[in-house]
Amino acid sequence: MKKITLAETRQFNEKSFSRFLLHDSPYFRVLNFNLAAGQIFPVHSHPAEGQLTIHVIEGEGEFLADNDTSMAAHCGDILVSDISEPHGVRATSDMRIVVTIAPPF
Amino acid sequence: MKKITLAETRQFNEKSFSRFLLHDSPYFRVLNFNLAAGQIFPVHSHPAEGQLTIHVIEGEGEFLADNDTSMAAHCGDILVSDISEPHGVRATSDMRIVVTIAPPF
Repeated sequence: MKKITLAETRQFNEKSFSRFLLHDSPYFRVLNFNLAAGQIFPVHSHPAEGQLTIHVIEGEGEFLADNDTSMAAHCGDILVSDISEPHGVRATSDMRIVVTIAPPF
Repeated sequence: MKKITLAETRQFNEKSFSRFLLHDSPYFRVLNFNLAAGQIFPVHSHPAEGQLTIHVIEGEGEFLADNDTSMAAHCGDILVSDISEPHGVRATSDMRIVVTIAPPF
């Protein structure tokens, strides 16, 4: 049992989004990404079994998918995606997301 | 790919905490529990492999464990626990949590 405090990783970087590994186990990996306004987590996918959640905990932007499609992403929205499905994020304000990947690959 | 909007399940119940199943797959189950101030999610555990996260998205209270131990739980805190480890939550204000269980049992 351990406690993660998201307030401790609230750091934005002018050059690129910041990345913090919060937890890793055979069951899931939990990461926090912080995107300054305008930054993009590019659309990508991995040829692995499993799913992930992208939980917006601050700010807003868009969830990105393939073929230039997108969905509004507000604080309190959670995207669920297969790991093998193209997914990404664009920040329109400073934006924080928590990503949970199960199982880790 | 699907989007969950946590604003849609922000409902508190005077009699007991409310529970919303947000996602279920072979990889993980995601639930939202809303506890009104004073309500308790009693300490429990399951004899299953895997881990869970309890992410506080609003309000505050305590993460509960066995032997009457507890840890402060603020918005933005995430507890990571084995499914087989005793865990619970007490709300001191109206409190919302997102629980992710991997793999579901």
